[in-house]
Amino acid sequence: MSRIDAQLAFLSEADKLKSVLRGTTLCDGSRRENSGEHSWHIALYAMVMAEHAIRPVNIDRVIKMLLIHDIVEIDAGDNPIHGDHDPAEMDLIEKAAAERLFGLLPADQAGAFRALWDEFEAAATDDAIFAKSIDRVQPVIANLESGGGTWPEYKVTAAQLQSRVGVKVQKGAPAIWSALKARIDAWFAQHTG
Amino acid sequence: MSRIDAQLAFLSEADKLKSVLRGTTLCDGSRRENSGEHSWHIALYAMVMAEHAIRPVNIDRVIKMLLIHDIVEIDAGDNPIHGDHDPAEMDLIEKAAAERLFGLLPADQAGAFRALWDEFEAAATDDAIFAKSIDRVQPVIANLESGGGTWPEYKVTAAQLQSRVGVKVQKGAPAIWSALKARIDAWFAQHTG
Repeated sequence: MSRIDAQLAFLSEADKLKSVLRGTTLCDGSRRENSGEHSWHIALYAMVMAEHAIRPVNIDRVIKMLLIHDIVEIDAGDNPIHGDHDPAEMDLIEKAAAERLFGLLPADQAGAFRALWDEFEAAATDDAIFAKSIDRVQPVIANLESGGGTWPEYKVTAAQLQSRVGVKVQKGAPAIWSALKARIDAWFAQHTG
Repeated sequence: MSRIDAQLAFLSEADKLKSVLRGTTLCDGSRRENSGEHSWHIALYAMVMAEHAIRPVNIDRVIKMLLIHDIVEIDAGDNPIHGDHDPAEMDLIEKAAAERLFGLLPADQAGAFRALWDEFEAAATDDAIFAKSIDRVQPVIANLESGGGTWPEYKVTAAQLQSRVGVKVQKGAPAIWSALKARIDAWFAQHTG
């Protein structure tokens, strides 16, 4: 297979990410968001919000990381942060997905894309920590904009939101979490208690 | 309004791009593609296909350009390349959309995003020429993958495809068009004449 044909095969397979539905809806609540459009949105989030990274990041690497971070869901599916799943099992499934999907690319690109995905997953570099924060911010906004979104469905409490989402956003972008906190507290004050 | 609040207002407004439907379908033909997921897919195309640019490009700028290039459609709608519309009128509508939408951002970012969008529209720099080529390639693949896609609906001929799409792809990424040409010719040979 020619180099371009291999690249086109990967890009056509990647199209399937547009059919993977996530736990959150669009901001207007009209339907579930898919992982393709989510990937676009968080890349845009990163582009706009780069200045709020807790430490300086290479925003171009962050954007690339976010563009490819969900591609494994084509094989592994989306696992909502508030849902039930076995992290160790999911880890194996996602690694196999990365192997197959990035493996469609020419070998040099397969290696580079896999390394970038591994870095995101490990969340140990400044770029990956910020990328992970941004990935957590966007669904919170979607839920707030759609009047609570899927929080009632998953029976999410304010404390769970802080421990599952807040802690991770604070690790990479504390200023953004501070801005969201007031909105989140207002929502829970109104809808619980 | 604080800087973060202005950025979040822009990002929530950008969410509406996920509800703008395009002239092409997903590769599996199951539904129309929206401009949000399209923007993700072509950014990924650019990331994978950078080596095929006719002249060296700054791929990081190309990716950013592609992430924001369709945002004006939130106000202006999508105008399929094979559809009927008045280019001069569309130009005015899209410029007003750029003014309003990028204007939601803090002034420095509004200026930077607008400059990047203007550069894409003008298609005069190497980065913009390659970005435009990539934007034209992805719908062709979607149509080929979905068995002709929306070509029959728009009554597109092989000659129109060459003049409306081929010429522009060749300007920025001739090697990709060469790879597609054989597939396109095979499709039209089978479905016309």
